[in-house]
Amino acid sequence: MRPGDDLAALLCHVAPPDLADEDVLSIAHKVVSKAEGRVRDLREVTPSPRAVELAAEHDKDPRAVQVILDESAQLLRAERGILISETHSGLVCANAGVDGSNVEDPETVVLLPEDPDASARALRARIAELAGKRPAVLISDTFGRAWRLGQTDVAIGAAGVRALDDWRGRRDYAGRELRATQDAVGDALAGAADLARAKDSRQPAVLIRGLDRFVTLEDGPGAAALRRPPEEDLFR
Amino acid sequence: MRPGDDLAALLCHVAPPDLADEDVLSIAHKVVSKAEGRVRDLREVTPSPRAVELAAEHDKDPRAVQVILDESAQLLRAERGILISETHSGLVCANAGVDGSNVEDPETVVLLPEDPDASARALRARIAELAGKRPAVLISDTFGRAWRLGQTDVAIGAAGVRALDDWRGRRDYAGRELRATQDAVGDALAGAADLARAKDSRQPAVLIRGLDRFVTLEDGPGAAALRRPPEEDLFR
Repeated sequence: MRPGDDLAALLCHVAPPDLADEDVLSIAHKVVSKAEGRVRDLREVTPSPRAVELAAEHDKDPRAVQVILDESAQLLRAERGILISETHSGLVCANAGVDGSNVEDPETVVLLPEDPDASARALRARIAELAGKRPAVLISDTFGRAWRLGQTDVAIGAAGVRALDDWRGRRDYAGRELRATQDAVGDALAGAADLARAKDSRQPAVLIRGLDRFVTLEDGPGAAALRRPPEEDLFR
Repeated sequence: MRPGDDLAALLCHVAPPDLADEDVLSIAHKVVSKAEGRVRDLREVTPSPRAVELAAEHDKDPRAVQVILDESAQLLRAERGILISETHSGLVCANAGVDGSNVEDPETVVLLPEDPDASARALRARIAELAGKRPAVLISDTFGRAWRLGQTDVAIGAAGVRALDDWRGRRDYAGRELRATQDAVGDALAGAADLARAKDSRQPAVLIRGLDRFVTLEDGPGAAALRRPPEEDLFR
């Protein structure tokens, strides 16, 4: 995948002939970022004094740290080799999503899409144009969690899928009002898709079927619905 | 489900005839807790002055707050009606996992199993005894996340499934060493299982097939492998 490549065309090419409007296509962000040219050549990066200092403290490449700082709206933690940022698009994750794994050139890093929900909407529209079917599109990345070891795939972009399914105000079977229940469906879908492939399988997309109840005609609010507003965050 | 009921027998009764050793049975903790008698009758709880104070501040039932404090090793946050605890078994979650939804008696709350990995091992052994097949067992609960809205189901107990799949030291396809990759497979499985049912469906168990590569003969370290040690936690 190279900048300007038509990812939607490639996805349509490998999609099954019975691709349907009710399907969800979960796509690893890396291939989206590559197609969008969201990559940085480390040879062209001049690290700032702050990047040099952070890199020395955390045993990292100062040029990679500079890219992480460029991609960060705010650095939330820098401890024991781990940098946790909030990105300009409001995602909280390690290294502002800047990633050098599964990239051919070791001097190149991949960034997150600038606006992952817009990327998902554009892919959905282009797939509809090419295939005559309009499945929901989900863009995933692999995030760590504050209190739990290991990473899971989460939804960073979405179009046509109810990423946050709000049950608040509805009642449980005993008639009690559910006060806090909001299902992070987008993240569960991204995690489920990741189970269907191995980390080194180079399979960027997974087709999910049978979850029509989460698929919507309109593109909707996307994965932005899953970002906790900073003022509601108890753990910054 | 009542204290002392044979949950494994019930699961075997509803399991498909081709239940296999390679299957993963994901079970919502609530039914496990009920069978284990991990419920509290609020009418028998006398709240301490601290519980009364917290309850007034956060618009909660002081008796429920007392149960939350009883189940907590440490209260990490108490803000805007939200209590985040570390439980005695080392899980970080809202209300120490104490939950009143989907319970027949409004004066009763359900606790987490005392040792969810032990619960999973016992269920796996009992199912093997009754069915002659020994699927992996996963026990799930619904947890919130620090920076993301909505909840996902995660694995709080496991037997026979690689809850944390460690890729550190292995190489990506370009030959670069993966330094941080640990897949939280248990949590992705719990989340995927939750997609297969609605919140009010009263379906406590979901059978997951086709993921033999995560199923192990031995019970293994369980979901304890997913708990981040407090000294590695950057967000307490």
